[in-house]
Amino acid sequence: MSHTRKIAVVITARPSYSRVKTVLTAIKKHPELELQLIVAASALLDRYGSAVNYIEKDGFEIAAKVFNVLEGENLTAAAKTTGIGILELSTVFDNLRPDIVVTVADRFETMATAISASYMNIPLAHIQGGEVTGNIDEKVRHAITKLADYHFVASENAKQRVIQLGENANMVFNTGCPSIDIAQEVAKNDALTFNPYEKYGGVGSQPDLSNGYIVVMQHPVTNEYQDSRKHIEATLRAIQKINKPTLWFWPNVDAGADGTSTGIRSFREKYKMENVHFFKNMEGDDFLNLLHSSLCLIGNSSVGIRECAYLGVPTINIGSRQNRRDRGQNVVDVTYDEKEIIAAVDAILKKQERPKSNVYGGGDAGTKIAQLLKELPLQFHKTITY
Amino acid sequence: MSHTRKIAVVITARPSYSRVKTVLTAIKKHPELELQLIVAASALLDRYGSAVNYIEKDGFEIAAKVFNVLEGENLTAAAKTTGIGILELSTVFDNLRPDIVVTVADRFETMATAISASYMNIPLAHIQGGEVTGNIDEKVRHAITKLADYHFVASENAKQRVIQLGENANMVFNTGCPSIDIAQEVAKNDALTFNPYEKYGGVGSQPDLSNGYIVVMQHPVTNEYQDSRKHIEATLRAIQKINKPTLWFWPNVDAGADGTSTGIRSFREKYKMENVHFFKNMEGDDFLNLLHSSLCLIGNSSVGIRECAYLGVPTINIGSRQNRRDRGQNVVDVTYDEKEIIAAVDAILKKQERPKSNVYGGGDAGTKIAQLLKELPLQFHKTITY
Amino acid sequence: MSHTRKIAVVITARPSYSRVKTVLTAIKKHPELELQLIVAASALLDRYGSAVNYIEKDGFEIAAKVFNVLEGENLTAAAKTTGIGILELSTVFDNLRPDIVVTVADRFETMATAISASYMNIPLAHIQGGEVTGNIDEKVRHAITKLADYHFVASENAKQRVIQLGENANMVFNTGCPSIDIAQEVAKNDALTFNPYEKYGGVGSQPDLSNGYIVVMQHPVTNEYQDSRKHIEATLRAIQKINKPTLWFWPNVDAGADGTSTGIRSFREKYKMENVHFFKNMEGDDFLNLLHSSLCLIGNSSVGIRECAYLGVPTINIGSRQNRRDRGQNVVDVTYDEKEIIAAVDAILKKQERPKSNVYGGGDAGTKIAQLLKELPLQFHKTITY
Amino acid sequence: MSHTRKIAVVITARPSYSRVKTVLTAIKKHPELELQLIVAASALLDRYGSAVNYIEKDGFEIAAKVFNVLEGENLTAAAKTTGIGILELSTVFDNLRPDIVVTVADRFETMATAISASYMNIPLAHIQGGEVTGNIDEKVRHAITKLADYHFVASENAKQRVIQLGENANMVFNTGCPSIDIAQEVAKNDALTFNPYEKYGGVGSQPDLSNGYIVVMQHPVTNEYQDSRKHIEATLRAIQKINKPTLWFWPNVDAGADGTSTGIRSFREKYKMENVHFFKNMEGDDFLNLLHSSLCLIGNSSVGIRECAYLGVPTINIGSRQNRRDRGQNVVDVTYDEKEIIAAVDAILKKQERPKSNVYGGGDAGTKIAQLLKELPLQFHKTITY
Repeated sequence: MSHTRKIAVVITARPSYSRVKTVLTAIKKHPELELQLIVAASALLDRYGSAVNYIEKDGFEIAAKVFNVLEGENLTAAAKTTGIGILELSTVFDNLRPDIVVTVADRFETMATAISASYMNIPLAHIQGGEVTGNIDEKVRHAITKLADYHFVASENAKQRVIQLGENANMVFNTGCPSIDIAQEVAKNDALTFNPYEKYGGVGSQPDLSNGYIVVMQHPVTNEYQDSRKHIEATLRAIQKINKPTLWFWPNVDAGADGTSTGIRSFREKYKMENVHFFKNMEGDDFLNLLHSSLCLIGNSSVGIRECAYLGVPTINIGSRQNRRDRGQNVVDVTYDEKEIIAAVDAILKKQERPKSNVYGGGDAGTKIAQLLKELPLQFHKTITY
Repeated sequence: MSHTRKIAVVITARPSYSRVKTVLTAIKKHPELELQLIVAASALLDRYGSAVNYIEKDGFEIAAKVFNVLEGENLTAAAKTTGIGILELSTVFDNLRPDIVVTVADRFETMATAISASYMNIPLAHIQGGEVTGNIDEKVRHAITKLADYHFVASENAKQRVIQLGENANMVFNTGCPSIDIAQEVAKNDALTFNPYEKYGGVGSQPDLSNGYIVVMQHPVTNEYQDSRKHIEATLRAIQKINKPTLWFWPNVDAGADGTSTGIRSFREKYKMENVHFFKNMEGDDFLNLLHSSLCLIGNSSVGIRECAYLGVPTINIGSRQNRRDRGQNVVDVTYDEKEIIAAVDAILKKQERPKSNVYGGGDAGTKIAQLLKELPLQFHKTITY
Repeated sequence: MSHTRKIAVVITARPSYSRVKTVLTAIKKHPELELQLIVAASALLDRYGSAVNYIEKDGFEIAAKVFNVLEGENLTAAAKTTGIGILELSTVFDNLRPDIVVTVADRFETMATAISASYMNIPLAHIQGGEVTGNIDEKVRHAITKLADYHFVASENAKQRVIQLGENANMVFNTGCPSIDIAQEVAKNDALTFNPYEKYGGVGSQPDLSNGYIVVMQHPVTNEYQDSRKHIEATLRAIQKINKPTLWFWPNVDAGADGTSTGIRSFREKYKMENVHFFKNMEGDDFLNLLHSSLCLIGNSSVGIRECAYLGVPTINIGSRQNRRDRGQNVVDVTYDEKEIIAAVDAILKKQERPKSNVYGGGDAGTKIAQLLKELPLQFHKTITY
Repeated sequence: MSHTRKIAVVITARPSYSRVKTVLTAIKKHPELELQLIVAASALLDRYGSAVNYIEKDGFEIAAKVFNVLEGENLTAAAKTTGIGILELSTVFDNLRPDIVVTVADRFETMATAISASYMNIPLAHIQGGEVTGNIDEKVRHAITKLADYHFVASENAKQRVIQLGENANMVFNTGCPSIDIAQEVAKNDALTFNPYEKYGGVGSQPDLSNGYIVVMQHPVTNEYQDSRKHIEATLRAIQKINKPTLWFWPNVDAGADGTSTGIRSFREKYKMENVHFFKNMEGDDFLNLLHSSLCLIGNSSVGIRECAYLGVPTINIGSRQNRRDRGQNVVDVTYDEKEIIAAVDAILKKQERPKSNVYGGGDAGTKIAQLLKELPLQFHKTITY
């Protein structure tokens, strides 16, 4: 006889929500699964785009909210945020008693989800392990792999890497990345389907978008946070010189966020930046629609590597943040250098083609993952394979 | 020009202290290293043998104490203890500003040390990674390997395993286990050098030790904690029937500790156990001297696998706790079964030889590790090797 | 039109549960109130009698459990337990959104309830403020009065004191103590209604109770915790000499609990104590029935001052713990002195009368409080009256 | 023989530091006192003016830093910040072992200092108790009074109130407010002694200050945080219309800070505000010098009530934040109303006199308090006086 499984998913940031939205929908729809959605960390905070508002608007019921972001301009705050997360998520899990806990990707605070679940002998599923980026996220990502019982990875390379990390191959599944599920829907539309200024407000000029525009999204890089301001200034100067209509997205919370933010604010105080509009955030599908219709994406967001591969959006990837991630042909890598950025944009604007790739999946990750969450044996005991 | 490096070592339990005492001594003596000793978790608590008292008696200065053990009879407490540990160790590291943090082995709460240090970009050294035990400790141990920058392992197998986990081979060192350093000193003495009843008190009868005695040390096994009581009762009945002088050591803190403890207390209420004396704890070298002079060790302590290999003490290893750890010829494995335990003791008492092995090192781990802590490049940035 | 109010009550210890059980029942039964019962701290722990089991057996649904007791043999643990309590109760309140929070009495960790509620602008009701005891509990008790919006006190003296503390007299209600509600029920029965050995197990001898027996309940005193062991030993020696059938109750968690516990354990190791049986805990009404039929109560429990006043049970109150609490004629005060204790018992055994008093209420506190929780204006803003 | 007392002072915010700076100096200079300065909460954060930088610049050695501000747009964050504070300060006190802990005023997070110290049986001194303000701070302030052992109050009314709260009159001292000590020094200078734009940067226009200027400092009011934005907008519009050179100071951290901050940012986006310059913060004595030379102060800062009384600076006090505090003749109270503010400024500009008052002390609080900290009996045991 069948038993409904309770699946707790912990969302800690806006981009994580966008990434796994189709997984949440598939769990919610599955007749033998019950979704226990926990919203925590920067996903609850205004400064970082209040993912919680979108989650509620999308019709998901929230089982628990956990405020655990410790404020601070140094890395200590990231560690402490994780500690508070463990303390509180343990209580939440103890009260909700899920059958499986799902953690997403590799942000520092996702370690809290992984530790609480694994220490409490709750089977742990990890979405998006096995990737290589060459930064602090890697420590987190691979450590979570060693705590997790099921692995839902986004590419064949990632699958092989998780197996090589000593995980049981029967518990590693290349489902593709759920973010591609949304990209697949969005790709059906070639034009911009909404007016971004009207729908999302934001600040700054409102350049005309009808003849093409650039999108910028650049996060601070944890390991080099004192340089965050210098990094962002190279991009700011490049955008000023390129002088095309530009839509700029505010960075996520991270130790160092304030270096980046301060850089942007000061630059705006000094220069007018008539060609630039700033957004705090955007719903995932609108953002992909915006990218799909854009000339190119500039920055270091993983969306450029991942969804833009599927959509064929040219991406100028700055610095080390996405190092060694699998890439489609859409990506051009540059350093934190104004001139390199400008040259890369020039080259893109001259090209005709926008090649696409399925390297991160084909658009059915959500339903695949939900089905696995129903079928997999409930287990939390494992041993390294070598 | 040379610069003194500050080395923070976090000790969270009595056995961890015993294990790395020679490392602490070697760091303290090293002219270019400064020891920042942090004592936390069960190492501060009476119920678990107050390692802190031995640490102070041994002449080590304590830089900070952190009480972080959350009380509770379930696994939730283990998770929360770790969360509180992160919260507080982050503050301690932020105030002490060590050049390197050292974490020991694989107890659940050592993850707090690993996360605080790695998130704060402090180079992290891990002692005793790469081993295989088939229990929850493995999740912790291998996850810490993925967070650590330097690996000081205890055997060749462990070294190969850490490298296979994707760590840079240049940062993995088979130093041997520092616990063997103490065993080497102890092995110089063939007889018991102290009166355990006088020196350590304890409770119960005081059987005559001059014609041979058995030592028992059995911890609860985290993954199976509801069975803890049944497990300990098999051993209690076996010891009652064997009826040899027996010295029994109380278990460490762990979720489930109370199952084991209650089992022992109830059994003592019912039966007299005239042949058994109970100790809470013992200084590391006295304990090894006691083992060296004993007929055999019974239980599931790693000391049977590790130091007893070097010393050649016959060990009856019960249950899954030491599964897949490298073994010398001294070990006989049995299940939680009264008869198997009795049969194994009978067989040992008939044998003449006590074969020895260097599988866990040759007695110079402490100085090797101290020297590496001085020489290794200070770095916290790494990427998986495949 | 009427609106159902959500009333969150936080229970943190076995005696607090007993004390307010009739309040919980009255809230649960009230058609316009919804009970949100939160069980935390030592109320969840085996070592302290697992109040949670009684709560569930009594048919109350638990809205959230919060494990927050930090283990330790010093006062630091009490402070940290409170800190963790705030951190977690804030999340619980944020998720449950109660209209009023109720906190009980003056144990150190109840401050967590008071701070979380008052800082979150949730109206806070305090049961049992305004009393005087001359110990650390007083700091806690009066500080909570200054954080609380409604005061349900147990005596006229307490009421006057709360008003003198600057509280609005309209918000201070002498409801009597809810523990008297249970005493009133119990008083209907003159004989022992159950067999304590069969129903509650416990350890030690099982003396015959038919010719009268003594009850002992002695807690460590926070301010003098290093002396806990000495204090308990005076009582142990007295009980041994008096040599009457004695039922001894284990103390609650508190910094210093282990001093008391160790004292009892060691004494039992040394002496047989044939006249004494030890219990971990007992349901509130059984305990009162046991007291009602006893010769006298010895120790420092508030039950001797409070319920025993109503029931007329002679009480030998040891030491400073109940200093300056209102007393009925049933109480004899002694110091931590074996001889004084013995002399007081002798005097009691010679008396015929057992005078009763309503100083702590007449038995209808539960329903009075529930009704006030429904009727009082919802407010969290106040100012001192002078 | 004399023994040096260790005095731990916990500073949690910029204004608290300014307030007690002369106390810190007097402790540091006192031959029989050792200062243990702990910097925590918003005093460590950039967004709130990094008091820590001024503290270090002023030559104070910092014994420990504690990051404990939880980020969030709701009151839950204030509660949790306090919980984390207790958890960590307990560890700090346990390691530093102070003889007395000093806590300052009534910000929500100062409760953490008070609870840690009082629960750990460390004598607690409270600076600035007994005042009346009619807001949430009052709950905190009076609750701390009930936890504290020594009371250093700022006015005669405050002294009487603390005594009426049941405190031992021998432990209540009207030392005056230490902030007046600085005002006394500053008052020696009639002119502006520095160029604020050069020394403190800030953003916005740089109006000419030579013909008089207004100072604005307005904090959100905890109990009404959703209205914060509306409140600040009334002031913004008034300042725009008055159109005098204005120096505006950014508010402190508080639940609701973001309502105020957002209000200011949006207004600046819309209007040029050519007459206004914005500062994040300023060293205490420079700030008083600036006030001393200003036309008037507008807002709800306690500096207007307190230091400006001594200095005779006209103060337009907006809203409920300073309700019922003792006032000198320099204060005009208004509501959150543009017109009232404008009218009050007009009236002030027409007046000639600037009456002064010693209601908050005469300028020697620092040395008085240091001397008391040396002389008072060390005690943590107290009982209410009625």
